Parts: sequence; C-alpha cells; structure tokens
Amino acid sequence: MLIPEDFLKKEEDHVEGFSPEVAVVTYAGGEKLEKGLVLRPTSETIIYDTFSKWIQSHRDLPLLINQWANVIRWEMRPRLFLRTTEFLWQEGHTAHSTEEEADLFAKTMLEVYRAFAEDVMAIPTVSGLKSESEKFAGALKTYSIETMMQDGKALQFATSHNLGQNFSKVFNVQFTNDNGESSCVWQTSWGLSTRTIGGLIMVHGDDRGIILPPKISPIKVVIMPMWKSEKTKNVVLNKSKELHDMLVNKYGNSSIILDDRDVRIGQKHYHWEKRGVPIRIEIGPRDVDNNSFVLVRRDTSEKQTVELSNLTNTIEHLLDEIQKNLYLIAKKRQEDNIVDVKTWPEFVENIESGKFVRAYWDENPETEKQIKDKTKATVRCLPLKYSETKEGTCVFSGRKATKKFIFARSY
Amino acid sequence: MLIPEDFLKKEEDHVEGFSPEVAVVTYAGGEKLEKGLVLRPTSETIIYDTFSKWIQSHRDLPLLINQWANVIRWEMRPRLFLRTTEFLWQEGHTAHSTEEEADLFAKTMLEVYRAFAEDVMAIPTVSGLKSESEKFAGALKTYSIETMMQDGKALQFATSHNLGQNFSKVFNVQFTNDNGESSCVWQTSWGLSTRTIGGLIMVHGDDRGIILPPKISPIKVVIMPMWKSEKTKNVVLNKSKELHDMLVNKYGNSSIILDDRDVRIGQKHYHWEKRGVPIRIEIGPRDVDNNSFVLVRRDTSEKQTVELSNLTNTIEHLLDEIQKNLYLIAKKRQEDNIVDVKTWPEFVENIESGKFVRAYWDENPETEKQIKDKTKATVRCLPLKYSETKEGTCVFSGRKATKKFIFARSY
Repeated sequence: MLIPEDFLKKEEDHVEGFSPEVAVVTYAGGEKLEKGLVLRPTSETIIYDTFSKWIQSHRDLPLLINQWANVIRWEMRPRLFLRTTEFLWQEGHTAHSTEEEADLFAKTMLEVYRAFAEDVMAIPTVSGLKSESEKFAGALKTYSIETMMQDGKALQFATSHNLGQNFSKVFNVQFTNDNGESSCVWQTSWGLSTRTIGGLIMVHGDDRGIILPPKISPIKVVIMPMWKSEKTKNVVLNKSKELHDMLVNKYGNSSIILDDRDVRIGQKHYHWEKRGVPIRIEIGPRDVDNNSFVLVRRDTSEKQTVELSNLTNTIEHLLDEIQKNLYLIAKKRQEDNIVDVKTWPEFVENIESGKFVRAYWDENPETEKQIKDKTKATVRCLPLKYSETKEGTCVFSGRKATKKFIFARSY
Repeated sequence: MLIPEDFLKKEEDHVEGFSPEVAVVTYAGGEKLEKGLVLRPTSETIIYDTFSKWIQSHRDLPLLINQWANVIRWEMRPRLFLRTTEFLWQEGHTAHSTEEEADLFAKTMLEVYRAFAEDVMAIPTVSGLKSESEKFAGALKTYSIETMMQDGKALQFATSHNLGQNFSKVFNVQFTNDNGESSCVWQTSWGLSTRTIGGLIMVHGDDRGIILPPKISPIKVVIMPMWKSEKTKNVVLNKSKELHDMLVNKYGNSSIILDDRDVRIGQKHYHWEKRGVPIRIEIGPRDVDNNSFVLVRRDTSEKQTVELSNLTNTIEHLLDEIQKNLYLIAKKRQEDNIVDVKTWPEFVENIESGKFVRAYWDENPETEKQIKDKTKATVRCLPLKYSETKEGTCVFSGRKATKKFIFARSY
C-alpha cells in the first residue's frame, strides 16, 4: 500500500502523471517521517523495485505477478463506481526478455479483457491504441477497451500497457541473456477495476433498475409465491419449495431465491426488478392447479407460461437468450452510434448528439487539445481493427493524416 | 482505507490504544489537508459512523457487515506474517438491540474461529477472555483464541469483541425500540488475519519446511516420476499421467501436481517437502511393472506401497489420517505444556522453560505489569472452560484471587 516517495519519482513521465493524484503519509507511529510514503495509485514502482531483486537470468523470465488490491487516487470530482478516491482493481505486471514478447502479451491481456466484457458482461467493445497524451504515464503504448454507455458517452473499461524498458531502466530490472550479456527486461502492466460495475449498470440498466446478464448475475431466478388466504398459502408455498429445490439442484443454492415474504406481490416485483435478476417465476393457486407457471424476463418483461416438466429446460434456454439479447441490443446501439465524419461541422454535430465519431486526425497533440476544448471530446483510441486506412485529411486541422481515430465524450 | 482523524478520537480508549500505531495522510492532490486522514488500523469508527445512518429502528437490527481488507499499524519490530505494518484480514461488525444478544454473538464468532483453527488448520486452541489491559481498545470484553507454537510461545489466533455501547454512544448509533423509545445499539467486532498463516507454519513445520494439513493444503498429492533412460522415461511418464488423471477426477485439477521436470528425484523431493504437500507418490520403471506405487506422507515420512486399484481409497484415508495426526501431535504438545502452578518460583521456572502457566492472579493491573517485567509473560486469557474455580491466592502478590488465568510469553 505504501510506496516511498522517491520510488515514484524515478520514472519521469510516471511521476508527472501521478503526482497530482497521490495522497502522502507524512506522520506515522507518532513521528514525522523523514521521507513521505505515497499511497499506491498503481504499483509499478514498488513491484519493479522487487522485480530487480527477483530477476537475474533469462531463466527467471517471463515473470507474471497479479494482485487484487485497493488503490488511492485523489479525486476532485468523484463519481460512484467510475471515479472514487479509493477503488478496487486487479493489476498485473510482467517482465519479458524481448520487446516482441512483451507487446504480444500486452495485446493478449487486452483480448482477455475484451472477452470478459463481451462474453460475460455482454458489453460490446472497441479495442484500440491510446493517443500519446492519453496513454498511461510511463508506458510506451497503452491499449484500451472502450465501451459505449446508453447516453453515448465512452467508458474506458480496461487498459493494457506495453511499458517497453521505461521502468526496467530506472529500477535496474536486468537479466543475463543467452550470450551472457546484461540487458533490461521488457515489461507490461494491465488492470481492470470496479468501474466496470458502473459500466455494467450504465450499459444494461433501465428506469426500473439494473439488468444483469445471466452469466454475471449471482442470482439467476427468483420464485415469487402469491396467495390470498391461509389455505391457498400453504399449497402455493409447498409448490414454490418444490420448484426451488429442483432449480437449486441445477444452479446451486445461492443462485435461486424463494421470496416467501408476506408482502404484496407488487413489492416483490419491484424489489427484484430493481436488482436486475434475469428471471422471475410467479406462482399463484391457479398455477399450482394447472401445474404451469409464468416466467418473466427482466430484459424484455416478456411473460411465458411453462409446464413443470419443461421448466428447467426453458430456464436454461431463457438465460442463454437473455445473455445474447443484452449483448445484441448493446451491440446494435454501439454500431448505430459510431459514425464516420469528414468535416468539422459534421464532427461537432455528431459529438453533440452523443455519438462516437471516427475521423482522420493529424496526431498532433495541439489539434487534440483544441478539439477537446471546443467539443469536450477526447481521442478514445486508434481502433486496432481499422488501423490500416488510406491517407486523408485531419478533420480539424485539414493537415495530412494517415489514420482514423475514434473521438467521444467520456466519463 | 482513510478515516478522518477526528473519528478516531471519539472513543477515548480507542484513540489511546491506536494513536501510537497510526499512519496519517496530511498531503493529498498536491495540497496540505485541513484535517489529517488516518490509514485504517481497524474500521470500527468509520463503519459505525455509517451504521448511525443505516440504523433507525429495531427492524434494522441485528446488522452484520464483514470486509476482507488491508489495514495499517505502524510496527517498530515487524515480523513476517505475525506483525507487519500492512496486513490483510477479515473484520466483522454487528449491531444488536440487546446486550445479551451482542455478547452471545461475540462468543459465537469466537467459536467459528476455534472451529476453523482446530478442524481446518489442525491447530489446538484455548478460548478465553482477555485481561482489562490486554483487551481491544474500546471493547467491554475481548474474547480470544490463544494457540501454542512449537517453542512454547503463545500466538493470539483471532479475537472477538463485545463492544457494549462504547462506540454506539459516541457515534450515535441509535434505534427506536418496540416501545418507541430511542436506545443505543449493542455491538461486536471480530477479526482474523494473515498472521494465522504464520501460526500454521510455526505449529506444524519442521526443519525440512512447512507441513500443511490436507484440508487447507491447495495441493493434496504430488506425483514424481523417476527414470534413468529415454526408454523407461516414456513408460514412467505415461503411467504417471494415468495416475494424475485418475486423481484429478476425484480432487480437481489444481489439487494434483505431476512433477515431470527433468531434474534429479532428490531435487523434486526437496522442492515439495519444503512446500508441505501432504502426500507424494514416487513412480519408477519397477513400480510400473508391478502396478504398485510408493506413497510418502509429509508429516511422518512413512512410506507405503499401494496397488493401483487401492490408490484413491488409500489416498483419501491417508489425507484424513494426516489431518488427524497433525492435530493430535499439536494437541498433545499443548496439553503437555500447560502447567498449573501455585508458587512464584514454579511460575518463573515454567515460563522460562517455555510453558503456558495456569495460576491464580489477583486481577490487579499492577501485578500484571510486574509479572511481565520480571518474566516477559503476559496474561493470555481467562480460559472459558476453567472460569468456575475455587478461591486461591495470587501467584505473585499472595493476595486473594478467585480465578485462574493462563500466562505465557507471546509473539
């Protein structure tokens, strides 16, 4: 948690990037400290100081360390889940013997994050390279996963950095190669934080609450018995328990909730809808008589009546459907809202109407700054999929440009 | 992680106990802070400030919050696992409507810790009540689990505190009871940290490395193929893979290691012995021919030859045996080394030879201090099991005393 202040200062860009955000311990154990201790805003410096002791020869490489930890970055404008002074994340760090291997590994981790976003969280992504001004402080290249929220704003979902030898040079992380020569290692670092929960809420939620993709929802199904008299109560509750046990058998105890509270059915709906549970099952006395039950999807509110014998199959199918549907809705929204523009008026109009804009940019930081000042849009990334493009002219400066970048307003 | 300094100061004993140990953030975001922020040494104050907002009526009670977190306590003499400036723990906090319920819950959590120590970590325990001077800063009563290391020193394994209304009064954690009257809640807090890993190592380890009880060992079995020629290598490796797959089927992939590295068998032994894996299986060409294999227990080094058809049953039985054996060895050691003494010379002699001493004490803090000064022994606890005793005389002061306490040197 605590990093000696002078560690942070060793890598020039790193200290410049993080200095304004750090919290510093100056008193401890009742005394003033000779040297300040910074609360980790990220752990490259302290981990690589240790790497320099662990790594001697090429046999020690590649090396990978991952930690799930809390970090502190002083925030002037905190925003729940997205930007908080303390947040939880996973940060991974590697050391490699070649530049190629490090760059490949940084891309591999980006792919891990993309797959998690799309396949588990049902959030479509754009993978790309950050601009020089937006890259991680101390990195050679920053790859990022960008996602689009329902309001059209971008959220950076996760990043993976090719650090080159920037840190290994200042922390003396050296290894002896096959030829007996000493050489600095090539490094990567990569992280994903609790802000992804904010992304999940903003991509799938609606006015009635959050909507959780089944693969990440801890609860899959809620069973809601309804009764009007003491006599029907027992019948309904017994059948509900039967369903509950049947589903627990398949999905495990914590995935299936039987809400047998003695409250109005509307209150139960409201409660679980807000919490985003994918499927609810309603059971009243008539359903028990018919041995068929009403399933309601959280994502579309569609209802269907299912006989007991088909229940588990239908639920399995529905969970799969909901997962796919949430992804497809978000994917279509994203595709409909990424537009290619050629002229500055088009650029401004589309940014103002909440789109992601793809346009030629001259890669000049001054242009980038002016675009941001005028529209609040930042360069989100150079998409990896579109990086091979023809020559064009910068949407703002009119100068020659060779690549199309994605611009958007962001959280 | 960050607690406003004035929160810490609200409970008088709490601030007195923790002030010498806290680290304080005084600069953040490039500016000096108006009020210092303490790195949590424990989270009662910040959590109970929040409890005061969450709790209104008796319907909000009981309330239980648990977190797995890092905490910081400034250490002058750090000791790996046992006392480090930053450590990881779980801390739980409850609020109750009655004193009885809170005290019962504090004891319930002590029992949870005892069961974990004995049934999972195979560490025998003494459950008891801390003395006034050793209790948690701010608690009414501290219950603790005391354990004996191989050198006879005590290690406090976990604690559970009955906080009474000490915190609820200063943080205004109030609820409206059945009669519509406002009342302060009764609270508990309880924690177990990574120091238990240190205890595990010190209770079971030997000169060859750590010894892990099977229930907590992530790896249950290591398979070590041995070969002398390329020809026998394939035969041995194939059979090893067969065994590996068979055991993985039962214990899961991460519990069974096939160490097929091309290194000397002695090196493999040394490697896994040091890491405490409960069972190793040696496979050479002759074993393949006989279809029987040598199992070696980490705890006793005993070997036994087992036919393939009996392998999984024998392993299941052995894992069970090892778990029991480790507990029984430690239990016998503990019983042999807790002695009842009546006179001061006996007390000194037994403490100096590394025993836990059970003796009458007059419960006077001055006596406690003098005993500590003269022998380095502290009051470990008033054992819950022995709390009903006859009257006697204090082993040090000779004054009247009604209870026998356990004294020992400790980590």
